[in-house]
Formats: sequence, structure tokens, C-alpha cells
Amino acid sequence: MKVKAEMISKTSERAAPRRYFDWAATAATDPAAMRALIDSDFPFGNPSSAHREGRDAREALEAARSRCARVLGVPPQTVFFTSGGTEANCIPLYSTLARQGSGRVLASLGEHSSVSENVKSLERLGRKTGSIAVDSAGRVTPALLSQALAKHPDARFAAIMSVNNETGTISDIAALRDALRSATAGRPHVHLHCDIAQAAGKIDVDLAGWDADSASLSAHKIGGPRGVGLLYLRKPLDALCRGGGQEKKVRSGTENVAGAMALAACLESRALPEKSGGDREKARLRWKRLLGALKEIDRCRLIPEERGIDDERFSPYIAQIAFRDVPGEVMARALDDMGFAVSTGAACSSASPERPVLAAMGVADGLSLEGIRVSQGWSTTDEDIDGLLAAIAEVLKFL
Amino acid sequence: MKVKAEMISKTSERAAPRRYFDWAATAATDPAAMRALIDSDFPFGNPSSAHREGRDAREALEAARSRCARVLGVPPQTVFFTSGGTEANCIPLYSTLARQGSGRVLASLGEHSSVSENVKSLERLGRKTGSIAVDSAGRVTPALLSQALAKHPDARFAAIMSVNNETGTISDIAALRDALRSATAGRPHVHLHCDIAQAAGKIDVDLAGWDADSASLSAHKIGGPRGVGLLYLRKPLDALCRGGGQEKKVRSGTENVAGAMALAACLESRALPEKSGGDREKARLRWKRLLGALKEIDRCRLIPEERGIDDERFSPYIAQIAFRDVPGEVMARALDDMGFAVSTGAACSSASPERPVLAAMGVADGLSLEGIRVSQGWSTTDEDIDGLLAAIAEVLKFL
Repeated sequence: MKVKAEMISKTSERAAPRRYFDWAATAATDPAAMRALIDSDFPFGNPSSAHREGRDAREALEAARSRCARVLGVPPQTVFFTSGGTEANCIPLYSTLARQGSGRVLASLGEHSSVSENVKSLERLGRKTGSIAVDSAGRVTPALLSQALAKHPDARFAAIMSVNNETGTISDIAALRDALRSATAGRPHVHLHCDIAQAAGKIDVDLAGWDADSASLSAHKIGGPRGVGLLYLRKPLDALCRGGGQEKKVRSGTENVAGAMALAACLESRALPEKSGGDREKARLRWKRLLGALKEIDRCRLIPEERGIDDERFSPYIAQIAFRDVPGEVMARALDDMGFAVSTGAACSSASPERPVLAAMGVADGLSLEGIRVSQGWSTTDEDIDGLLAAIAEVLKFL
Repeated sequence: MKVKAEMISKTSERAAPRRYFDWAATAATDPAAMRALIDSDFPFGNPSSAHREGRDAREALEAARSRCARVLGVPPQTVFFTSGGTEANCIPLYSTLARQGSGRVLASLGEHSSVSENVKSLERLGRKTGSIAVDSAGRVTPALLSQALAKHPDARFAAIMSVNNETGTISDIAALRDALRSATAGRPHVHLHCDIAQAAGKIDVDLAGWDADSASLSAHKIGGPRGVGLLYLRKPLDALCRGGGQEKKVRSGTENVAGAMALAACLESRALPEKSGGDREKARLRWKRLLGALKEIDRCRLIPEERGIDDERFSPYIAQIAFRDVPGEVMARALDDMGFAVSTGAACSSASPERPVLAAMGVADGLSLEGIRVSQGWSTTDEDIDGLLAAIAEVLKFL
């Protein structure tokens, strides 16, 4: 099918503002979070310096750490600032290299490339690896986890994401933790790492209750700047990459104080009930409105199809949808021309036609190619949703 | 000796502004570089996204890359953005793991911990390593490099910094490159990695002329934000850490567009003659003024002593100095109390009494403990220098 986007675009020459529906790739920057960075009193010092500029920076950094810890419900000393989500996944993964004989590294087939590609990298270095299957919804279930652990008695590390970045599928980490502990009773400890990049600030995250060993998130997914992320570590670990020994040797490099402050502000704005002002409930209702209307469109299918319009098993910030006979790339381009930013999947793989996560879910290639990802965020409105629905209807008239 | 800083401080109760002399640890943030980040038209999109927000972000990122490349005199495709200097050192170092049998990794004894600690980490993983000695000025000389290469015929990687972060000593990379090529003629290629964190924007850097294989720098050392650095790679390499495959798989993670733009602005402001407005020449004259006055103080010694007051073999942005019978820590604290921020050495090792770089230079322990590092930057003035000299004189009256 040839792209008819230009034609469609011409039929809709209203000078509408851009409407952004790719928050899972990156969020619009939250001005509140960035305000601190332009403050002339900003503590620019190096937190490791002993002089006053250094001490002021240290104080600001530790205050940011405490604020993040409070939002996440964990002790401040378990919070480590990183340069982003990728690094926060890399640190625990590569720490397995520092432990000789530390066993097999497992990762679910739903993981983001910042986990899966590093598992491959570990494999190239001789580390034993293995996978944890996902069900047709892209979810790791206790049964699937138990199967993987039974198959690999030498497993010592399991990476399971909380919310899938392509479908919004939520895996029940508390239930998985129970399955993991019961399947490995009497065996050496299996480190449970949880990527919460699409969960933090969006769904309930209970790291302490989940009993996770580590978790990773990124500031820019929730309105913060690039260049800062967070690694939760229940216990310190031996990081592969070293240097000045900052962040208790877990993450070397001069600490990004401004980034940490902005991350703290964003986490609070998104996750603390007194600050978020019911945003999450509004997001849930907006998504119900979107998915309800989409389900009425004959040519539209949700991926996975079992997803309900107000389904607690999925994040109300992400949806994967498909339109019969419209390649996802064509739909995304047509919508872009009409002023709506959506994606086909993870931004970092936008140049590749492969959709490994959908393949792992058993989604047929044809349907997979028709998938687009729609995701919302802190400034999305009902009008945005209505605008998107109208634009989709318009595209479907022509394609 | 007991710290008498409080007493000194009481004798000098002028409400003077703080004067910052620890630019080698981190620079005061350059407002010009940060301005772009608060612009409402800032391209917040993910550069890997196919939609307009993504394309705008990509365009901004590539423009920043081209600007950095122009300042450094290298092709844009050899410039890779990282999260900072540490990561820019880690990427080439750990890429040696990806190449089986890729030989020994050498590093000079003057290297910053973001190199030296990672060489130790590689050693723990079984990689063969070795060191390149420095002379009494902390400099790698062609003879010392040739000796290291003769001792280790299996060397395939050599890390040699341009400007030492503790003493300001400049190693002549062009001469070292010649020595390296001649010592290894007929042998497999030896990768030359050059940490230019204290050189970029401060002394002449000629990556192309030096024929370096890679080089690393950090934005926050020249007035930019934390969370962004730059890796120059003459040829792409296999990075150990992977993920979304950004930066041609050299550095995965959503690109820090704002950071890259700010880094480009800082590099231009510091290094382009038409933008820097003769700043470097002024810096040279200020340092001559400082060192000249210090040499007049009977109890003061420059480290190394062979350093002249206007000596091209040292960066005019950093000096290591010692005062007889005054521990460096005491002098630094006394000056801090009087409003002057100086350090004893690298910020990241400020909690440790060890000075491995000075030890490698053969500086006696006693003298080494008396060392303080003074460093200047883009907003330092003649008045700052005079103030520092007066403060030092005041401290020496009491200690």
C-alpha cells in the first residue's frame, strides 16, 4: 500500500496544535521540574568536594535522594542516581561479571532492549543466559517464571519488567516474587531486577513490598531531563564500571545534582497523591474513553485483544492498537502529518520492522505490522483524545 | 597540626563574595550554555522517533554534533555523545572485552580514576594490563612510552591523558603518537586513547593531528551541565554496554539533546577564537601573575618544582602548590572559611589521603600531603587572583 498521507493531510488543513501521543518514548518536559536548574542559587559544586560549594551540592544531592526514596517507599541509601534507564539496567546486569560463578542470567522476552541487548552482550562474554517466556498478553506469569527456573537450576539473576513499553501490560511482580522464592527454596538467592521505567509515576510501584533486589527508572519518561535515571538496590553491589567511586562505587562520574533534583520533583509530581492532583485517575478515565471508542471501530483491534477498555492488568498510559489493512508505519505517518505524534513501537527500534516483544506474545506477523503504540502523559487532555479519534477516523476513510 | 581555620576566619570578617578556584573539579555553569534548555521551543522529542517531534530532536542533536566536531576539528560522524567523561573513558576501555585476544591494556600512571579504576576492573576480569610511567613532572615522555611498549609486546591499547587533572602537566600527544607508531612498527595496531577532560577548551587540542584513536571529555568541566560528555572515535567500535543502539550502538540510551546542545555551546565559547574573546590568553596571564607571586613566598613550592611561572608544558588552568608545614587539607579548609574554594586533589578522592599521581611523580609523602590544587575557569578575574594571594598570606601568618 502506498502512503497517502500527504493527500489526507491536505484534506485536514486546520491549523491545529500538535498533539503528542508518544510519551512512552519520552515525555514533554515538565517546566516545574526544570525550574530549579535555572535558579541562580543552584548549587553547581562537585558533591565530592570538601569546600562549601561542594558541601552545598552534596546537601542538594542527598535531599533529592531522600525525596526520590520517599516517593518509592524505600530507604535513601538504596537509591543511586545514574545517567538514565539504560545505565540503571546495565549496572546490575554487568555486576554479574564481577562475581565469578554467579550463575545464569535470565530475562523475560518482554524486556526492553536496554536489558535484552545487554543479556546478549553478557552471553558473548561467556555468561550463561536464558529467557522467561511471556503469555499472549506479554505478561510473565508465576507459572512461566517457575518453568524457567525449573529449566535453569543455575539461575541467579532474573530481569522482569513491571510495565511493558510496547503494550502497557503489567506483570504482577509481587506474585512473581512469591513464585520465584518458592521455586528456588533451598537454592542460592536469585537476584530479581525490575525495570520500572514505564511504571514509576504511572502505576502503583511497591519496591519494598515486591522484595525486588534492584529496579531501574529514567527521568525523561516522566517529564524530567535526559541524562539522569535511578537505580534502586536493596543491597550494594560490585559495579563493573568504576572511576571516582561516586554513589558508593555503584555509579562513578560527577553526580548530576540538577538532574537528581529534577527527577525528584517529577517523581513527586507524578506519584505523590497530594501533588499529582488525581492525575492518574484522570489518565485512567481518558484511556477508558480512548479504548472504548477504538473498540467501536470495526477495523481496530487492541493488542492483545483480551485487553478491556478499563483493564487493571494494563497501564492506562500505553496501548498497542492495530487497524486492519493499514500498516502501522503508514498510520503513524498519516497521523503525524495531521499533527498527531504516535509510534509503531519503541522509539529506539523505529528504524527496524522487527517487533520481538509482539513476536514473543505470539502476535501474527501481519497483525504485528499493523500495530501502533499510543501513549499519554501528564499534559494529555480529553480534547487530545477526541482529536486523535477524529484523526484516526479520517485516515480510515482513505486507507 | 590542629586546624586553626576558625580562628583565621574570625580575623578576616569581611563579607567578601565566594571566590571559586576548583574549576578542575567542576566549572561554574555557563548561563549562555544553559539558555537553550529553558527555551519553550526546545525540541523535547526522542531523536529516534519517526514523527515530527522526533525529527526536530534529531536535527538539534545532529546540529550539536556538527558544532562539537567543528570545534574539535574532526568529522561529525566521529563524535559520540555520552553521559560524561567517565562513560567516555569506559566505552573504549571495555570495548577491549568484546575483542577476544585483543591484547594488553596499558594506562599511564597519571590517569584519572575514571581510567585507572577501570583498568583494574578489566584486570579482575582476566584482561592483561600494564602501566606507563610518568616523569617527575607527571608527564608521559616518548622514552617512557617506548619502554612500556618494549616491555609489553602484546599491548593493544594505551590510555594517556592530555592534561593531568592534579598538576596541569601537559603530555605531548603528537610526540607520543610518533613514539608509539615507531615502537610498534610491524606489530598489530595499538589503540591510543586520550582523556582530554582538562584539555578541551583550555589548551590546543588537535585530535586529527594527534592521530588519536579515541578521546573523552566532559561538559561540566567547561561550564556545561552534568550528564553529558563526548567520545571521539576515529573508527566505530564494539561497545560492551548495549541497549536501544543509539549513537550507532556506541552509547545506548535516549540521547541527551539538551545536554549535547549545551556542550556544543560551551565548547564553542571556550575554544573558538571568535567566541572566546581571548579568554585563554587572559587565563595565561592570570596564572603567570598567580604563580609569579607564589614563587616569591618562601614557604611555597610548585609541584613539580621545575614548573616555571609561564611554562608551556603546563596548563594555565591548574596548579599544584604546597606550603611548608601546612597540610594541604588544613590550607584548603582555612581558605574555604575565608571564602576561597580550592581542593587538595581530584574531588572524587577528596576523602582519601592517598595521592597516587603525585606518588607516581616521585613526590615525597611529606610534600604530597602539603599539596593543594588551585584551578581557574571562564569567570575567574584578576581580583580573584589577588584575593587568593592575600588570603594565602593571611593563613601563612597563623600557620
